[in-house]
Amino acid sequence: MGRDEFLRNLDAVKENVEGQLDDFLQQKIAEAARIAPGAEELVRILREFTLRGGKRLRAALVHYGYRCFCDRETETVCRVAMCLEFVQSFLLIHDDVIDEDDTRRGGWTVHRHYADLHRERYRRRDPNHFGESMAILCGDLALSLANEILGTLYLETKVRSALLNRMNRMIRLAIYGESLDVLSEVAEKVSEEEILLIGMLKTASYTVAGPLQMGAILGGAGSEDLERLSRYAIPLGNAFQVQDDILGLFGDAERLGKPVGSDIREGKRTFLILRALEKASSEQRDFLERMVGNRDVTEADVEAIRRLVVETGALDACRELSRRLVEEARKALEGCGWREEGVAFLEEAIGFMVERES
Amino acid sequence: MGRDEFLRNLDAVKENVEGQLDDFLQQKIAEAARIAPGAEELVRILREFTLRGGKRLRAALVHYGYRCFCDRETETVCRVAMCLEFVQSFLLIHDDVIDEDDTRRGGWTVHRHYADLHRERYRRRDPNHFGESMAILCGDLALSLANEILGTLYLETKVRSALLNRMNRMIRLAIYGESLDVLSEVAEKVSEEEILLIGMLKTASYTVAGPLQMGAILGGAGSEDLERLSRYAIPLGNAFQVQDDILGLFGDAERLGKPVGSDIREGKRTFLILRALEKASSEQRDFLERMVGNRDVTEADVEAIRRLVVETGALDACRELSRRLVEEARKALEGCGWREEGVAFLEEAIGFMVERES
Repeated sequence: MGRDEFLRNLDAVKENVEGQLDDFLQQKIAEAARIAPGAEELVRILREFTLRGGKRLRAALVHYGYRCFCDRETETVCRVAMCLEFVQSFLLIHDDVIDEDDTRRGGWTVHRHYADLHRERYRRRDPNHFGESMAILCGDLALSLANEILGTLYLETKVRSALLNRMNRMIRLAIYGESLDVLSEVAEKVSEEEILLIGMLKTASYTVAGPLQMGAILGGAGSEDLERLSRYAIPLGNAFQVQDDILGLFGDAERLGKPVGSDIREGKRTFLILRALEKASSEQRDFLERMVGNRDVTEADVEAIRRLVVETGALDACRELSRRLVEEARKALEGCGWREEGVAFLEEAIGFMVERES
Repeated sequence: MGRDEFLRNLDAVKENVEGQLDDFLQQKIAEAARIAPGAEELVRILREFTLRGGKRLRAALVHYGYRCFCDRETETVCRVAMCLEFVQSFLLIHDDVIDEDDTRRGGWTVHRHYADLHRERYRRRDPNHFGESMAILCGDLALSLANEILGTLYLETKVRSALLNRMNRMIRLAIYGESLDVLSEVAEKVSEEEILLIGMLKTASYTVAGPLQMGAILGGAGSEDLERLSRYAIPLGNAFQVQDDILGLFGDAERLGKPVGSDIREGKRTFLILRALEKASSEQRDFLERMVGNRDVTEADVEAIRRLVVETGALDACRELSRRLVEEARKALEGCGWREEGVAFLEEAIGFMVERES
């Protein structure tokens, strides 16, 4: 499978899952409309946020995780993929409240959207707290929809139980990862190990390993297969996170759908920043420490941080780390004996996820 | 079943469900401890909050909803009851963030607890935002645990599917209710119908109807039974809410585990307050409007509001509404033909829920 075919496959999954998400959400909108306009609006805002989103990489990983083991066409794969998209909405919506981010996926975040609605319509109480409150509820709704879909699939008891177990473990790890992230931002010191652990929990587990394994469980994979998938997925997910950190500083705001340098403003000490701190002169370190977590960082500051990250060799170190991780992921696929169609997608996914620019 | 036997039964359920909650949470604490101290602390705080709580009325309703239809002893009933307790923790933790409440169940709310930890330990960033962030995640964790328990029960596919559907619909309605509540606090005007709808979604559905019906589904109830249960549960839940509003103004802070008058400070326009506004003189109305949503309401103000609520006849109107609702609930049980043990509990529950003082 070349890059073109990979992209066509990704698009096919995207179209399918988005169509189904829309159908499902229209039903929930109709149900909420019978209750009250405020409930209907909440579901509409969740719909807009969920459909606005990205590449549907998680949905594709569910699909091809399944294809590694089974070639029978079934609607169930798409239902599981829908769950993952709702889990993604849930995590992003709450994450954005926590990080106080205004933009996501090229539009307003949910809490910002509701804060703006408040300014237009209401006068009582604080628009920002109102926005946060509604976004907490919107994220909760997304999580509950994910569980409803998965819980009501007609599947063998063992398979459904394994899927729900896997999904909720993935969610739990992502919640742990996010809470360690919040803690790391208030702590005086963070180690490289902690940063890698957070990336593993927040990203590798739920961007790659969870979706792939859920597809594989559905396709009938055994425990050895799941274990091998994890040896592929975790390093790849970590490499994806490293690329995320690089793009967060060196990427293009428009392509990313969020401002460059927001990691810095939020005080996220990424692997990239940690490595730069380690290699920096004391003057450079003072500058960088002043910048991290500073909400007033300017475009010129970001440019200076970029230079510093290049000069200290931190960027090269990240790229080297990424190369090692990719190598590890590739190795895990050797001799797996899974279905060709699935494996070809997983191989191509490596380059796509690590070389991406958005 | 007299009141004493009812209370003994309630206590037996409480002891059982709390023991199981503790065992389950100890396992999750051990799992989180293998990941990181911050993750372990998050689960410990959820454990402390969940075990601290109240009467376990929802757990008992699951139990006796089941007993209306089946007398076979099974561990599953208790697992379902545990789910409901986690759903309760999830809703309360997020609700407290939204309402900016400091106390709950006679202790600190989760966000307040974390804000205090921040003040002790950290210097970076804002303690309150940190507290809210961690509480959002703690609530998310509770919801994910509820779904994990329910999703991995060994049950017939049809029964499990019906349970997961019922639980997630209940959660969805509670989320809608909470969002309408948030909207009602910022809106200029709220009608009695809206207030009753919010109470129905936030309280009646998930305090009484959801737990009872989940127990009943497990016991093999048919759709007509579920429908009759709902005719019992919705008015009873509404009467419970009316009593909540009365206690919120006239109750005892210590017994309630939260300060009296917090509804007023938060700007909640309860049925009680709405009725008082309607019957008030223009001078009284101005005073009450100034008080609702005012964070600086004093103990003397609360006392004045109490007098106003009595003088306008709003308190009597609430009691009358409660009596009608209770009547409706009682009627729904007539000629139901369910098992005696279950029905006796449901009958006794009416008085308990409506006459309670905490």
